[in-house]
Amino acid sequence: MSLKMFCFLMALAGIFVTCDSPHPEHMDMDEQQAPASRPEYVLVIHGGAGVILREDLSDSLEAEYRAALNAALDAGEKILKEGGLALDAIVAAVQTMEDNPLFNAGRGAVFTHDGKNEMDASIMDGRDLNAGSVGGLTNIKSPIAAARAVMEKSEHVFLTGRGAEQFAAEQGLEVVDPSYFYTERRWKSLQQAIEAEKKQEAMTPEMKHGTVGAVALDKFGNVAAATSTGGMTNKHYNRFGDVPVIGAGTYANNLAGAISCTGHGEFFIRYTVAHDIAAVKMYQHKSLEEAAHEVIFDKMGIAGGEGGIIAVDPQGNFAMVFNSPGMYRGYTKPDKREVKIFKD
Amino acid sequence: MSLKMFCFLMALAGIFVTCDSPHPEHMDMDEQQAPASRPEYVLVIHGGAGVILREDLSDSLEAEYRAALNAALDAGEKILKEGGLALDAIVAAVQTMEDNPLFNAGRGAVFTHDGKNEMDASIMDGRDLNAGSVGGLTNIKSPIAAARAVMEKSEHVFLTGRGAEQFAAEQGLEVVDPSYFYTERRWKSLQQAIEAEKKQEAMTPEMKHGTVGAVALDKFGNVAAATSTGGMTNKHYNRFGDVPVIGAGTYANNLAGAISCTGHGEFFIRYTVAHDIAAVKMYQHKSLEEAAHEVIFDKMGIAGGEGGIIAVDPQGNFAMVFNSPGMYRGYTKPDKREVKIFKD
Repeated sequence: MSLKMFCFLMALAGIFVTCDSPHPEHMDMDEQQAPASRPEYVLVIHGGAGVILREDLSDSLEAEYRAALNAALDAGEKILKEGGLALDAIVAAVQTMEDNPLFNAGRGAVFTHDGKNEMDASIMDGRDLNAGSVGGLTNIKSPIAAARAVMEKSEHVFLTGRGAEQFAAEQGLEVVDPSYFYTERRWKSLQQAIEAEKKQEAMTPEMKHGTVGAVALDKFGNVAAATSTGGMTNKHYNRFGDVPVIGAGTYANNLAGAISCTGHGEFFIRYTVAHDIAAVKMYQHKSLEEAAHEVIFDKMGIAGGEGGIIAVDPQGNFAMVFNSPGMYRGYTKPDKREVKIFKD
Repeated sequence: MSLKMFCFLMALAGIFVTCDSPHPEHMDMDEQQAPASRPEYVLVIHGGAGVILREDLSDSLEAEYRAALNAALDAGEKILKEGGLALDAIVAAVQTMEDNPLFNAGRGAVFTHDGKNEMDASIMDGRDLNAGSVGGLTNIKSPIAAARAVMEKSEHVFLTGRGAEQFAAEQGLEVVDPSYFYTERRWKSLQQAIEAEKKQEAMTPEMKHGTVGAVALDKFGNVAAATSTGGMTNKHYNRFGDVPVIGAGTYANNLAGAISCTGHGEFFIRYTVAHDIAAVKMYQHKSLEEAAHEVIFDKMGIAGGEGGIIAVDPQGNFAMVFNSPGMYRGYTKPDKREVKIFKD
């Protein structure tokens, strides 16, 4: 009798069978999925998911995005190549994107309904599940640096608004005038969104999305995840999306992997996307790619959520999974680098 | 060969075995755990976990707490008995506790370092994973009502600070002067905490804890969870704990159950406690009690986190699990009610 038949009969008989190994976390991959040997490092980044179509993106703008993604990969890879920590690599990669007005994070953050920039960020260290989140920052140059400071320098995980700004300033992080975050492109987007709202037109998906993130595996086998965003164009009521919600937008655990999300944040919170991918992988012993596909397509996607994730596991497998038309993304490891924007 | 031996040999051989039934979510319970028939309804509540010792609680104060817990059970049970929804029952139960200065939520919220009351709350509906969270409210009488309004009346999940207050007011929720939340007992606690901070003494666990919550199963088989808190005495920097973090302090899913947490919030965020309990139950097919025990004791507890959870699953099993000396708690179902405070 085959194992499948055996289990099927047990299920028919109402007997539920689970056969756990002593350390199931380390046994999730079959021979086909497991790389021959773990790569020395892996870095994966995203610059937001959404309606990104080839016909809408000029050649020169596409080239700018590709250069920006490569610059972020360069910044993180340098650290990993020199034997640095996943944690340092992801912060370096994310900060490169925060400083670039192309992305909806830091410098290029979108505007709220009231014409402000309110930024959220979070970070998680797979070694000890330590985490830091900030929500609603208006004057800290690097929100991801603020999230990291919360993780490392406070007894808290989640600081918000004026309090988070005060804490970041006390930690010596760079404070900027809110006008630093003004970009004409985002200001125009806000005006369009306000016009659309007046006419009771739906916001375009493009207005809802935009986040940057990075996940990495270092040579010590540690994973870490970081996410940073300017939120949603024309957002009201000091809305937070999934980015500052540990387990929704960001999660890292050396037993499972590191995940950073981008997309329609409300759905990522409701589906606890980042932690659920880790849980499906850890507890159902599926591959990282399978777990991510299941959560993004079969759970959140079916409910109407749009967006994507990047992820890496301690064995060096990585995934870039999205159900939107495009996602700015890339990965780099010792033997290969790729930067992609569209589905194909 | 026994099944266990079979699986053990498979594990030795490096072959990982999982035997999924077509709908494993509905098959997690063995004959011993499954109730003969699902009770018509179950309501479970908590009023916070912490260092609650018999010798520290006067007979009269203990009687007050027991009466308050019974009043909350009464309010929710009335709705369930009349065939109402789990969602309505948990809001009624939580509001009873928000209105009672005994608990650290609503009226009895603790003070921040700056002498304010900043309240957080969240709610989740197991039918469709819809959710609502609010953080940092200072003038809304019932924070759980605000969380519910976010869930039902906005396209968002998580609103914070002034924006959340504005939204709640626009929805017609009762706005109160912040002095409504002044209680002498909490003011004294703040002064003690500030003194302790000056002397660089550690805060007592009592200062860190305090939350109210409810979970319920209704006659339709729906589960829902709600949590509300005043946060941590003497908190700085607009800190949020786990309460407004869906997946950490609150989670509900008709496939798994509903969970509401109380305790040292930072640990509940890092361990994504509420969603992890649901995930262990759903994906590893453990009972609700086993799943909760594993997450509270073997994961979060080992890392130093203190607190507890209440939970109910769609089959009517419920759990009240905590690793602190005590937890104000109670449950009620058609044939039985209990209210408890201490470990025994």
